[in-house]
Amino acid sequence: MYPYRHLFDFTREIFLNIGCPLDDAQLATQVLLEADLRGIDSHGVARLSGYVRLWEAGRINAKPSISIVHETPSTATVDGDGGLGLVVAPRAMEIAIKKAENVGTGWVSVRNSNHFGIAGYHAMQALQHDMIGMAMTNASPLVAPTHSTQRMLGTNPIAVAVPANEQPPFVADFATASAANGKLEILQRKHEKAPLGWIQTAQGEDTDNADELKQGGSLLPLGSDLTHGSHKGYALGAIVDIFSAVLSGANYGPWVPPFVSFLAPPADPVGRGIGHFLGAMRIDAFRPADEFKQHMDNWITSFRKADVKRGEEAVLIPGDPERIMTAIRLQKGIPLLSPVEKDLAEVGRKFGVKF
Amino acid sequence: MYPYRHLFDFTREIFLNIGCPLDDAQLATQVLLEADLRGIDSHGVARLSGYVRLWEAGRINAKPSISIVHETPSTATVDGDGGLGLVVAPRAMEIAIKKAENVGTGWVSVRNSNHFGIAGYHAMQALQHDMIGMAMTNASPLVAPTHSTQRMLGTNPIAVAVPANEQPPFVADFATASAANGKLEILQRKHEKAPLGWIQTAQGEDTDNADELKQGGSLLPLGSDLTHGSHKGYALGAIVDIFSAVLSGANYGPWVPPFVSFLAPPADPVGRGIGHFLGAMRIDAFRPADEFKQHMDNWITSFRKADVKRGEEAVLIPGDPERIMTAIRLQKGIPLLSPVEKDLAEVGRKFGVKF
Repeated sequence: MYPYRHLFDFTREIFLNIGCPLDDAQLATQVLLEADLRGIDSHGVARLSGYVRLWEAGRINAKPSISIVHETPSTATVDGDGGLGLVVAPRAMEIAIKKAENVGTGWVSVRNSNHFGIAGYHAMQALQHDMIGMAMTNASPLVAPTHSTQRMLGTNPIAVAVPANEQPPFVADFATASAANGKLEILQRKHEKAPLGWIQTAQGEDTDNADELKQGGSLLPLGSDLTHGSHKGYALGAIVDIFSAVLSGANYGPWVPPFVSFLAPPADPVGRGIGHFLGAMRIDAFRPADEFKQHMDNWITSFRKADVKRGEEAVLIPGDPERIMTAIRLQKGIPLLSPVEKDLAEVGRKFGVKF
Repeated sequence: MYPYRHLFDFTREIFLNIGCPLDDAQLATQVLLEADLRGIDSHGVARLSGYVRLWEAGRINAKPSISIVHETPSTATVDGDGGLGLVVAPRAMEIAIKKAENVGTGWVSVRNSNHFGIAGYHAMQALQHDMIGMAMTNASPLVAPTHSTQRMLGTNPIAVAVPANEQPPFVADFATASAANGKLEILQRKHEKAPLGWIQTAQGEDTDNADELKQGGSLLPLGSDLTHGSHKGYALGAIVDIFSAVLSGANYGPWVPPFVSFLAPPADPVGRGIGHFLGAMRIDAFRPADEFKQHMDNWITSFRKADVKRGEEAVLIPGDPERIMTAIRLQKGIPLLSPVEKDLAEVGRKFGVKF
C-alpha cells in the first residue's frame, strides 16, 4: 500500500523532470492520481510510464501554450499545443466554467491534446461552482461499430457530475464500450477469461479470450449485440468522437493516434492530436441552485430506497463506488501490482528519482 | 397502406377538434407522423387516441400558453402549461436555436409538458440552421436501476442530430433501456417471446415473457446486466431524467405521470408534468461550418467503408434505417395494424371525422 502523498510527490517529480512547469506538474499529478483514489487503477499512476514514453517519442509537449483559437460567448475551441491531456483538459474546463458564469453555460471542444486521465475529474470541477459538469474524450480505436469487425472508435468515455445538497454529488463516468479496456487488461494480467459480449474476434465472432485484441479482435459497443442495443453504444461512442474531434479539428475515428509510444500515429492525420469536449451548466441558469439541490437530494434518496433485488445489497447512485473507494484509499493507501511497482521504479531511475 | 397526406389530414382534424389552434394542430401532426414515416410505429399515429384520452381526462391543455419562466443568454426554463409535448417541445427547441444564434449554444429545460413523440424530430430541427441538435425527455417509469426491481425511470430517449455536407445527416435517437417499450408492445401483440436481457420479473429474474410488465416486472437499462454495463444505461437514463425534470421543475423518477389515461398521476407530485431537455450548438461557434461538414462527410464515408462482419450487408450510420424507411413510406404509404385502424376509426367517430 502506498500513501497517496508518496505517489503524489513521486509523480510530480517525474512530471517536473520531463520539463513541466510546477503548476502543470502539480495539476497533471492531481488528475492522474484521482484515478487511483477512485479505484480506476488502469487510468492512474500505472500509466505514468506511458506518458513519459510518449514524451520521449516527442509526442507530448511538456510546455504547451494552450490557446483559444475560436470562441463565442458560450463556446470555445482550444488548441492544446500537444500538451498532456492531464493539463489541457482541466484548463479547458476552466474556460467552460468561466463562460457558464457569464452566459449560463460553457462548451469547449479541444484539439491537439493527449489522453486526459479519467473523464470524471474534469466533470467534477464544475461542482464547487454549483454547476453541472460534463467531460468526454475520444481515444485510440478499439471498438467496432455494430455489424463491423474493424476498430473504428475508442472506448470514448462520458462523464456527468451533478451537485446535490446534503447528499454526495451524482457522478457518472463510463466508457461507451460494453467494458472499458482497463477491465480487459486486468483479466489479461490474471490470465482469466472475459465474459461473452465484451470482445469479438477479427472475424466478428463473440469470444471470451481476453487477449483477442492482439489477434485483430475488437471491443463491442455498450449493448454488446444489435438485439441488446449495441447500435446505441456505437451511436454514443460516435457522438463523443464528433463532439471531441470533428468539432475541434482533432483526429477522429480510426485516425486517433495510439496512446502507446511503440505504435506510430497514422501517417495521414485528419486533424491534430486527440480531442476532448467539456461542458459546464450553471444550475441557477435554470432554477435557483438551492431548490435544485434539494430536489437532487430527493432524487438520490428515492433511488437509494428503491426495492433491491435479492442477493444485492443496495441500489447505488453513480459515483458511490468511487467515493467509497476514495475514502478507503486516502486512509489505507493505494495498492499497486508488482509490474506497476517495477515500472515506476524504472521510470524513477531514468530521472534519478527514488520511487 | 395509408398515404402520408391522408393520415396527416385526419390527425390534424382530430387535434383541431380537441381545441388546438391551427398552427399547433399542424405542428403536432407533423411531429407525431414523423414517427410513422421513420418506422417508429409505436410513437406515431398509433398513439393519437392516447393523446385524446389524456385530453378527455383533463390532463392535456389544447390551448397552452407556453412561457419562459427563467433565462440567461444561453439557457431557458420553459413551462409548457400542460400542453401537448408535440407542440411544447418544438417551440422550446426554437428558443434553443434562437439562443444559439445569439451566443453560440442554447439549452432549454422544459417542465409541465406531455409526451413529445420521437426525440429525433426535435434534434433535427437544428440541422437546417447548421447546428447540432439534441433532445431528450423523461417518461413514465418502466426501467429498474441496476440491482433494483423497482421501475424508477422511463425509457428516457436521447437524440443527437449532426449536419453533414453531401452525406445525409447523422441522427441518433435511442431509448436508454436495453429495448424501447414500443418493441415490447409489438411482441405482445404477436404473442412472441422477448430476448433475454430486455426484461426482468418482479423478483428481478431475467425473463423472455413479453407480458411480464403486467405482473410487476420491469425493463432493464441499456447493457442488460452489470457485467455488460447496465450501470451505464442506468446512468444515462438518470442523466436524461435530471436534465429534463430536476433542472426544469417537472416530475422525475417514479413521480413521472403515466401516458395512459386510465392510470392516475402520483398524488404527491414533486413538480409539474413531464420534462424535456433540448439543445442547439452552432457549428461555427467552434469552427467554420463548411470545414466541419466536409469532415463529417469523411467521418461518415469512412465508417460506411469499415470492414463488414460476415452475414451483414453494411455498417450503418445512425439515422440510415429511418431515412430509408421515410423514402419508402412517402412513396408507398404507411402500414397500420388492424387494431390501430379500428382505434383511429373510433377516435374519428367521436368527433364526426371520417377516417
